[in-house]
Amino acid sequence: MAGQRLGEFELIARYLAPLAADAPGAYGLRDDAAVISPRLNEDLVVTTDAMLEGIHFLIEDGATRIARKLLRVNLSDLAAKGASPVGYQLVLGLPERLANDEWLRAFCNGLEQDQKAYGFPLYGGDTVRSPDRLMLSVTAFGSVPVGGMLRRGMAQAGDDLYVTGSIGDAALGLETKLNHRLFPSAAMMFFDARLHLPTPRLAFGQGLRGLAHAAMDVSDGLVQDAGHIAEASGLRAVIHAATVPLSLATRQAVQDDQSLLQTVLTGGDDYELLFAVPPQAGRDVAALAGRVGLAATRIGTLESGEGVSVVDAAGHSVPLAQGGFQHFGGTLE
Amino acid sequence: MAGQRLGEFELIARYLAPLAADAPGAYGLRDDAAVISPRLNEDLVVTTDAMLEGIHFLIEDGATRIARKLLRVNLSDLAAKGASPVGYQLVLGLPERLANDEWLRAFCNGLEQDQKAYGFPLYGGDTVRSPDRLMLSVTAFGSVPVGGMLRRGMAQAGDDLYVTGSIGDAALGLETKLNHRLFPSAAMMFFDARLHLPTPRLAFGQGLRGLAHAAMDVSDGLVQDAGHIAEASGLRAVIHAATVPLSLATRQAVQDDQSLLQTVLTGGDDYELLFAVPPQAGRDVAALAGRVGLAATRIGTLESGEGVSVVDAAGHSVPLAQGGFQHFGGTLE
Repeated sequence: MAGQRLGEFELIARYLAPLAADAPGAYGLRDDAAVISPRLNEDLVVTTDAMLEGIHFLIEDGATRIARKLLRVNLSDLAAKGASPVGYQLVLGLPERLANDEWLRAFCNGLEQDQKAYGFPLYGGDTVRSPDRLMLSVTAFGSVPVGGMLRRGMAQAGDDLYVTGSIGDAALGLETKLNHRLFPSAAMMFFDARLHLPTPRLAFGQGLRGLAHAAMDVSDGLVQDAGHIAEASGLRAVIHAATVPLSLATRQAVQDDQSLLQTVLTGGDDYELLFAVPPQAGRDVAALAGRVGLAATRIGTLESGEGVSVVDAAGHSVPLAQGGFQHFGGTLE
Repeated sequence: MAGQRLGEFELIARYLAPLAADAPGAYGLRDDAAVISPRLNEDLVVTTDAMLEGIHFLIEDGATRIARKLLRVNLSDLAAKGASPVGYQLVLGLPERLANDEWLRAFCNGLEQDQKAYGFPLYGGDTVRSPDRLMLSVTAFGSVPVGGMLRRGMAQAGDDLYVTGSIGDAALGLETKLNHRLFPSAAMMFFDARLHLPTPRLAFGQGLRGLAHAAMDVSDGLVQDAGHIAEASGLRAVIHAATVPLSLATRQAVQDDQSLLQTVLTGGDDYELLFAVPPQAGRDVAALAGRVGLAATRIGTLESGEGVSVVDAAGHSVPLAQGGFQHFGGTLE
């Protein structure tokens, strides 16, 4: 099959239709549309993330990992909204050079692995021949009890700001990938895995329903995403830099080179959950963390005002050169 | 604004958020996901169509027309499934050269026009910076009564095959666009409009619920799409070439050059509805056509067997060199 020209219908029948076997409304991808029947008293949560070759990934990342990250960044958005996965639509813009059995098998194998792991079947989509770059897009569907979607903009003054897991590992992975920065080899493997195979925090997100005032996933960088919650809620976020949870490997890297703290706080691709809860909910958050087996760390507060400030242990402002796409004045102290 | 570098958040806030004003669950595009709450006893119909610069459209087609065609090809899929429009997710992969006020205004103006015309608000999506080509994708949502989606593969032997409107106009528009083929100027304007601004047959499609055994829209070409219904239903489609409805302009063009009949029967982009009904439903189809104000013409039948044949008035097979992506033997008689 490799090297042979592959038609659209053959591509769908051979590679994609098996991925739709568990979606009752996908009709084996043999119709023009799919049917999603939300259960009684449930809302459908819908989110879309596109990934482009050369911008969001490289072909050298490997077809299987590209596929898995594509699903996981979308699942992470569902997690942040407290939703349970339902399924997804896929846009596959395939260049000729990848329209071969080897690449497609590896790509669909990645989709299949994570579909099974997360109960997230393919419902439909579109395949187009892309003249140059691989273009991928997923529209993900999840379900929540009616009115139960976690929002970005409902944080209240006085809320505590928490984040799950650890921050900055993926950003250091990107430092190695783009700038050939070296770390101890075990650390580099860990950073690379965190960059290419983020873990959607689904169980934790579902546990935040009715508990968190606001939630989102950290994809653009901790500081910028805290800014998103603050802005959408009409509040100011204050982050205590010393409390931001770091993995052992990242803590070591920052100790060796203090300038990496900025990379850690503003780099993207963490896919942890950032959320605001009232102070009295601290015990519930701890209980949820224990139940799910995922750390949640209080990193700051939401106050009246606007913007984001990052402060050190002495309460002094830590100026950051850049937070994701936003611009901050000054340089790192 | 033109020429200035435009950030993702500004693009969303300035151009896209106003398009989401009528979608209650879009939250002004200020959250990570949207909520769709299907009404009781309704299924959600989901379909995705992607369009790529240089493959599906040219920038010279104009930003407004590109935007409107993007929505209309998706609305046409909803129409073919008998669905009422609910809203859509948009992927906008924008190259730097188009990230200016003039282009974005024209593009969003096109979206807005057809959103209003069809009651089809923006729910969310993703914007990415594309290094070269404009990449567009829409995932469209519609609603039908539970179990009411029109299917492709439920035609029965003995059904009559119908098509709405006229066939081949867009294919002749493409002949002019790609091969600089000349027709009378009024005809060329008509073909061009049919190519770039198809009309989704929503009211007709909704009227087919409970009436048609199978339906789809004609996007790949009449012969190929009849083949899709036939194949999905495990049947053979027979099309009577002389009964295929042609516009006056297309009829004239085919009279002037018989070889264009093949282009008309196999060219794409008609976006008419192709559907199968039992013979006794002919009167209901005529009544629906009268009510909606759109012609529906009986062009053939579905029989036991497989494949598609096109026959002339004398009942002889009309061999076609190519039907869409499928291959047929022989040449046009």
